[in-house]
Amino acid sequence: MTDIEIAQRVTAKHIREVAAKLEITEDKLEYYGNEKAKLPLDLIDEEKVDKSNLILVTAITPTPAGEGKTTNVIGLSDGLNLIGKKSVVVIREPSLGPVFGMKGGAAGGGHSQVIPMVDINLHFTGDFHAIAMANNLLAALIDNNLQSKTKNLGIDPRSVIWKRCMDMNDRALRNIVSGLSGKTGGIPRETGFNITAASEIMAILCLCKDLNDLQEMCGNIYIGDTFDGRAVYAKELNSSGAIAVLLKDAIKPNLVQTLEGNPALIHGGPFANIAQGTNSIIATKMGMSLGEYVITEAGFAADLGAEKFLNIKCRKAGLSPKAVVVVATIRALKYHGGKSLDALTNEDLEALEKGMPNLEKHIESIQSFGLPVVVSVNSFSSDTDAEKQLIFDHCEKLGVPVSISNGWAEGGAGCTDLAEKVVEAAASCASDFTPTYDLKDAPLNKIEKICKTIYGADGVELTAKAKNQLKRFEDLGYGNLPICMAKTQKSLSDNEKLIGRPKNFDIHIREFEIAAGAGFIIPIAGNMLRMPGLPATPSSERIEIDGEGEISGLF
Amino acid sequence: MTDIEIAQRVTAKHIREVAAKLEITEDKLEYYGNEKAKLPLDLIDEEKVDKSNLILVTAITPTPAGEGKTTNVIGLSDGLNLIGKKSVVVIREPSLGPVFGMKGGAAGGGHSQVIPMVDINLHFTGDFHAIAMANNLLAALIDNNLQSKTKNLGIDPRSVIWKRCMDMNDRALRNIVSGLSGKTGGIPRETGFNITAASEIMAILCLCKDLNDLQEMCGNIYIGDTFDGRAVYAKELNSSGAIAVLLKDAIKPNLVQTLEGNPALIHGGPFANIAQGTNSIIATKMGMSLGEYVITEAGFAADLGAEKFLNIKCRKAGLSPKAVVVVATIRALKYHGGKSLDALTNEDLEALEKGMPNLEKHIESIQSFGLPVVVSVNSFSSDTDAEKQLIFDHCEKLGVPVSISNGWAEGGAGCTDLAEKVVEAAASCASDFTPTYDLKDAPLNKIEKICKTIYGADGVELTAKAKNQLKRFEDLGYGNLPICMAKTQKSLSDNEKLIGRPKNFDIHIREFEIAAGAGFIIPIAGNMLRMPGLPATPSSERIEIDGEGEISGLF
Repeated sequence: MTDIEIAQRVTAKHIREVAAKLEITEDKLEYYGNEKAKLPLDLIDEEKVDKSNLILVTAITPTPAGEGKTTNVIGLSDGLNLIGKKSVVVIREPSLGPVFGMKGGAAGGGHSQVIPMVDINLHFTGDFHAIAMANNLLAALIDNNLQSKTKNLGIDPRSVIWKRCMDMNDRALRNIVSGLSGKTGGIPRETGFNITAASEIMAILCLCKDLNDLQEMCGNIYIGDTFDGRAVYAKELNSSGAIAVLLKDAIKPNLVQTLEGNPALIHGGPFANIAQGTNSIIATKMGMSLGEYVITEAGFAADLGAEKFLNIKCRKAGLSPKAVVVVATIRALKYHGGKSLDALTNEDLEALEKGMPNLEKHIESIQSFGLPVVVSVNSFSSDTDAEKQLIFDHCEKLGVPVSISNGWAEGGAGCTDLAEKVVEAAASCASDFTPTYDLKDAPLNKIEKICKTIYGADGVELTAKAKNQLKRFEDLGYGNLPICMAKTQKSLSDNEKLIGRPKNFDIHIREFEIAAGAGFIIPIAGNMLRMPGLPATPSSERIEIDGEGEISGLF
Repeated sequence: MTDIEIAQRVTAKHIREVAAKLEITEDKLEYYGNEKAKLPLDLIDEEKVDKSNLILVTAITPTPAGEGKTTNVIGLSDGLNLIGKKSVVVIREPSLGPVFGMKGGAAGGGHSQVIPMVDINLHFTGDFHAIAMANNLLAALIDNNLQSKTKNLGIDPRSVIWKRCMDMNDRALRNIVSGLSGKTGGIPRETGFNITAASEIMAILCLCKDLNDLQEMCGNIYIGDTFDGRAVYAKELNSSGAIAVLLKDAIKPNLVQTLEGNPALIHGGPFANIAQGTNSIIATKMGMSLGEYVITEAGFAADLGAEKFLNIKCRKAGLSPKAVVVVATIRALKYHGGKSLDALTNEDLEALEKGMPNLEKHIESIQSFGLPVVVSVNSFSSDTDAEKQLIFDHCEKLGVPVSISNGWAEGGAGCTDLAEKVVEAAASCASDFTPTYDLKDAPLNKIEKICKTIYGADGVELTAKAKNQLKRFEDLGYGNLPICMAKTQKSLSDNEKLIGRPKNFDIHIREFEIAAGAGFIIPIAGNMLRMPGLPATPSSERIEIDGEGEISGLF
C-alpha cells in the first residue's frame, strides 16, 4: 500500500481527544477542521520545559536510498507512548513546492505518519502562505520606496538583497528583472524569488519567542544599502507591525496526530541546507510543556541539521537535548560504501563495512557536543542478519547503543526497543551540550571550528568576495552572531560527489549572506540554490481528485 | 469609533449557532476557529434554490465620496431578518493586497459589518492563497515545459499569455523578465504578475459547479501558441488534477456572521473592472438553498458589476434575481453634479439635480433587463431634508421605490424600510431577466449591445490589434462566449474623467484577452491594470499589533 492509502484507512480521532491527552482544554483550541488545531502561546510553561526530555533525531549523510528520518521520529514517539511515556512529536511543516516536483510528502511514511497527511503536505493551516505574504509585503514596500518622491531612503536598487518568495518549485523565478515598462512599472532592477522555506521571515518565525520578539527581529532585517553605503533595515519602512499582523496566526503551533492517535506539533519549516533546518522554538517549548518527551528532527544529516539545531536554535532558546538518535539504513550505508543504487538489496558486507565511517563521523560529531547517542537502523526487508550483526558489532566497539527500528511496517510497536534505549540514554545525560564554538569567537574562527570538528575538513578557504563581505558584516556589528552554513547535504564536504567519510579536504566559502533579523551569518559553500526547479516529469502530472474528493497520485 | 473598534466590541456567536439558524447541523461544519466555517457543496439543493429570492445590490458610478454598497448589503440582510425574513448575505472575499495600500477593509462598515473582520480582510480561510498557488503551479509547469527535452510542446515563449499572480499591491511585479542566469535558470521571457483577484483561476472558481467542473474548466485555459501557431491549453500539461487538489478546500463557501449574528457566506473575489466581479455561483446557490432571501453584490456600478452578474453569472447558473437595489449617496450624486470633494457636506440642490442622471442611467440599465429596481439612499448626517425630498421626487417620477437606509449607524434597524420595499419589489417580479445580448450574437455585436444599452455609448471602435485578436478568438471557436468588459469603474464611458451621465461617446477597445477556461472574451477598453501598486504612504505603515494580539491602524 502507498502512504496515502495507509493514511486514508485510519480513522482519525477528533483533535479535541488528542489535545485531551495533553490536558489541553477545549477553549485553548482553534480548530482548522476536525483534525487540526492551532494552540495559543500561553501553553508554554518554562518550568515544565526544564523537566522535559528533548530528543533530537538526525541521520547519516542522505543518499538516493533514503533514510526515513521523519518516519523514525514518529515511530519513536509512538513507541515511547506504548511503553508508557508521554511523548510528543514536534517537527517542521513540509514545503508545498517539492510536492509537485519529485520528493513526495514529508509527513513520515508507512505506519509512522502524521495525519491529515494530505492537508499537512498542501496548504495545512496557511502558515507558509502567511510567511510568503509577509516576506513579499516587505519586498513591495522596498520597491515602492525606490520610486518614492517624498520618503525616499536613497536605497541603491543594485544593493537590495531582500528577495520575494513563493512556496513553489519554480526555477524561472530564481533570477528576474522586475519593475519594467516605464514610469508606472517601478524602478527596474535584478532580483529573484526564493522558495518560502528559505525566507528569513521563516527563520525568524522559528527563532522568535513571541509576536513582540518577532516584530523586533523583522525590523532588524538588513535589506540593502543607500547609494552612499549606509545599511538600511526593514524597520525604516515601518513594516514590522503589518508583518506581525500577517503572522498573528502563523506564529501559533499546529496540533495534529500520528496514525496511532498520539499528539504531534508541526510548526515552521526552514530548510537545513540553507537555513537552520528545524521547527520553531515556540513549538519545541510548547511540546516540552506538554509532554515528558519531545521527539524532534533537524533536516538532512548531523553535519547540517544537528549542528545548527544545537549551535543556533538550542543556544538561542536555552535548551539542551537529553539524547540524539542517528538514523541510518543498511541500504544507504552500502551506498556510502560504493555500491550502486540498483544493487542495494543484495547482501554486501564489504560495502557495508566501507560505508560505516559515514555513520561513525556523525556519531563523533554528536559526541563532540557531549551528548549521548543512540543509533537507529531503519529496517528494510532486504537487510540480512549478517549485515545487522556487522552494524551491531561496530556500534558495540564505539560504545553506542543501537536498535533496529521498524516504524514503517509496524508503527510504534516497531520502535519500542529504540524507545527503551532512548529513555536509558536520556537518563544518562549528565549535562547540557557544549557548543562547537563560542559566540565571541571571530566569525572565521567559528566557521573553522564547524568545518574541522563537524565536517572533518582540514581548513576553510574564502574567495576575495567572501572576505570583503565578512569584513562588511563585522563592521556592521554582526561578529557575535552564530553561523548558519549553506552547504550541500549530499556530502560531509562541499563536493556532493564525495560520499562516505571524505578526508583531506577544505571547505570553500564562495560568498556570505546575512540574516540580521533572524540573527545569523550564512557562509555559502559551493553552488547552493534557494529556489528549486521542477523535474522533467513533475509529480503534478500524476495527481488526480475525483468528484468525491478522493485524491490519488499525490504520494 | 472606527470600524475595527465597533467590530471588536461585539461578542461574536459561535459559528455553530449561526449555522443552526440555517438548520445546518454541526457535522457539516469544517471550523476555522470559532467564528469561521467551511460548508460542503452538498448543502446545495436546486429545488430550494428555485424558491429563494435573489436580491442584487449594485450602485451608481463610484466616486471618492464612497457609496457603501457592502454596508448596504449587510444592513439590508439584517433588516430583512428583523422583519421576520430568513435572509443570508452572500458576498465576495476581500483581496489582501489593497489592505496595505489605501483602500482599507471590504467587510462593510459601521454597524453593518461581517465578522471576524480582521481575519476576513487578511488570510481568511486561505482561499486566495490556494488560488494563487494553483495559478502559479500552472505557470511553473509552462516554464518547465519550455525547457523540456523530452515533452516539449513547442510553445513559443513570446506567446505565453498565462501570468503568475500574488495577492499583493506590487507594481514592480507587473512586468518582469523571468528565467534569467543561464541554462539552469530556464528560458528567459517577458511576463508578469496579476493580483490574485484577477486570476482566471479565481474566475473559474466562481463560475464552476463543483470540483469536476472546475477541473474541466481549468484544463481549457488557453496558455499560448506553439511556434507554428497552434493554440495550447492547460490540459496538455496534465495540470488539472493538481490544480483541483490545491483548490479542494477553496471551493467550499465560508460561513461567517454579521455584527447582528445573522449568517453570511463569503466566497471568491474576482474584481469587477477586469473580471466578472461577483462571488461564486456555488455560494449563491448555497445561500439560496438555506435562506428565503439572498442579498448579494456585484462590484462597482451597474454598468460593470450588475451587467456581468446578469449576462455572465446568472445566465451560466440559471439564476434570476427578483429585485435589484441601486445604492446612491447624496454626497456622491452632488459630486457627479460637479461639486468639489471638499464641499460635499454643504446642501446644494442644483449639484444634486445635475448628478441625478447618473442614478437614472443605472436604473434604466437594470430596467433593460426587465427587473424591478429599488433605490437605496445611503444616509449621511450631512444630508438635508430638501436634498432627500429631491431624490424622492425624482424616483417617484421614474416610478421607482426609494428608501433612506442607515445601516452604517443603526445596523439592520436602519434598513427595515428598505427591507420592506425590497420584499414588495421581489413579490412583483413576474419573470426572469432578459439578457442584453444573445450568446449566438457575433462577439462585436454583443459588445455593441452592452456599450449602447448599458453605457449609453454611440458605438464601439476597435484598434487594428483588437480586430486581429477577435478574429483569432472567433477562429478558435470562442464566438459564442459571453463578454466580460474591462473598463474603468469611474465613468459610464471609457474615459474616467467623464462623470455624471456622459453622452455622445464611443467605447474604444484597445485589445482583447480570452479566458477560455472561465468562458468569456475580455475586451479591454483603455488602460486597465491587473496589478495595482502601493501609494506614497502605504497603510501598512500605520498598522500595529501588541503583545496581546490587539490590532490597531488596520481600518
